Amino acid sequence: MSISISERIKEMGLVLPPAPAPLGVYRPLLVVGNYLYVSGQGPILNDRSLMTGKVGGTLDRDQGKKAARQVGLTMLSTLVTHLEPKLRIECVIKVLGMVNATPEFEEHPYVINGFSELMAEVFGEENGIGVRSAVGMSLPQNIAVEIEAHFLLET
Amino acid sequence: MSISISERIKEMGLVLPPAPAPLGVYRPLLVVGNYLYVSGQGPILNDRSLMTGKVGGTLDRDQGKKAARQVGLTMLSTLVTHLEPKLRIECVIKVLGMVNATPEFEEHPYVINGFSELMAEVFGEENGIGVRSAVGMSLPQNIAVEIEAHFLLET
Amino acid sequence: MSISISERIKEMGLVLPPAPAPLGVYRPLLVVGNYLYVSGQGPILNDRSLMTGKVGGTLDRDQGKKAARQVGLTMLSTLVTHLEPKLRIECVIKVLGMVNATPEFEEHPYVINGFSELMAEVFGEENGIGVRSAVGMSLPQNIAVEIEAHFLLET
Repeated sequence: MSISISERIKEMGLVLPPAPAPLGVYRPLLVVGNYLYVSGQGPILNDRSLMTGKVGGTLDRDQGKKAARQVGLTMLSTLVTHLEPKLRIECVIKVLGMVNATPEFEEHPYVINGFSELMAEVFGEENGIGVRSAVGMSLPQNIAVEIEAHFLLET
Repeated sequence: MSISISERIKEMGLVLPPAPAPLGVYRPLLVVGNYLYVSGQGPILNDRSLMTGKVGGTLDRDQGKKAARQVGLTMLSTLVTHLEPKLRIECVIKVLGMVNATPEFEEHPYVINGFSELMAEVFGEENGIGVRSAVGMSLPQNIAVEIEAHFLLET
Repeated sequence: MSISISERIKEMGLVLPPAPAPLGVYRPLLVVGNYLYVSGQGPILNDRSLMTGKVGGTLDRDQGKKAARQVGLTMLSTLVTHLEPKLRIECVIKVLGMVNATPEFEEHPYVINGFSELMAEVFGEENGIGVRSAVGMSLPQNIAVEIEAHFLLET
């Protein structure tokens, strides 16, 4: 894409939450050569509160999907805040979508599509869709969804 | 290896299930330079049904191991179907083996060996064995095992 | 860093447990170009026993954090034992911290800091801190924590 993430976000009219401060000893993102690695992000709302709950329990699959989209907005905020502006993303390589799900929940891919559909809108279908796993586990602060991602940068 | 995956599979007499259609917004695999990334694959049988159940619950460790081998056959089917035939795999770099296990289950490595032993047979011990984690979580559609992998391509 | 890991460990007075033998069909580590991939490591004590238990259940968060530090010592032992001595680590790229947690546990980042703080001490804050996810799942042999990591080597 020939425009920056900031410009694309503005163009789409997206409102981004504040970028999260790390909850532990890690960096929000790291660039190594043309690779960009982003730490696991949670669903932060504009008032800095978190979307919490167990998908399949206190949250249904559509609430889970909304949380996954919010993780996407949070990750975009992290990129806008911490990625050097001269660096531009070429494509999504890999996404690990982690759903705070009950042991019986079966629709993790439906939930994580909330994130992946946003990436496809922002970067385009050709570049915004990479490989993915979407699975269930327990998450920090009882957040509903956490996602880590790996991007390729333009050379 | 000097022969293609298709030839090696034929030589070994393996029967591959149909390659899975993505259940969400992701690609089955992605090539970036010499790296090949493969999305999380489940255990698909030849009639397109899935091997489901909780290992340590409705399934024992040997049924789990069979499911992990079937994930390997499914991943080979994905490679044969979606990887450009001119690209050849040099070695397995990394495997994340995810077992749909009860919280008390302790033999995730035994289960995931079903996948890893198949890769060692197909690509040889030198090239078919990479780094690995084998852990327990909840999985889409209650599949017994899901595995994502990262390969190096020949230059 | 201009000194080797072995020298740095000696300088810090760290006592390393024996490097684990693989529990399955995988390598302890793999070098591809300048990238070093390390398999999921558990918390091995000096007498070869494992730190086991569910964090949030039989173990509290501080016991979990100690286990994560012990995973760090185990990983350093793996590096000293299996990485060619002429290869030197430039920085930590990525850590996946997996806590054997109860479904209600919420402090995975606090636990995994036990590992990350050790890496920051050994490699320095600039190079020892990479991206990270810290999440909960079930683990082999009921170990309290398992961590896999991805490093960049010096050229």
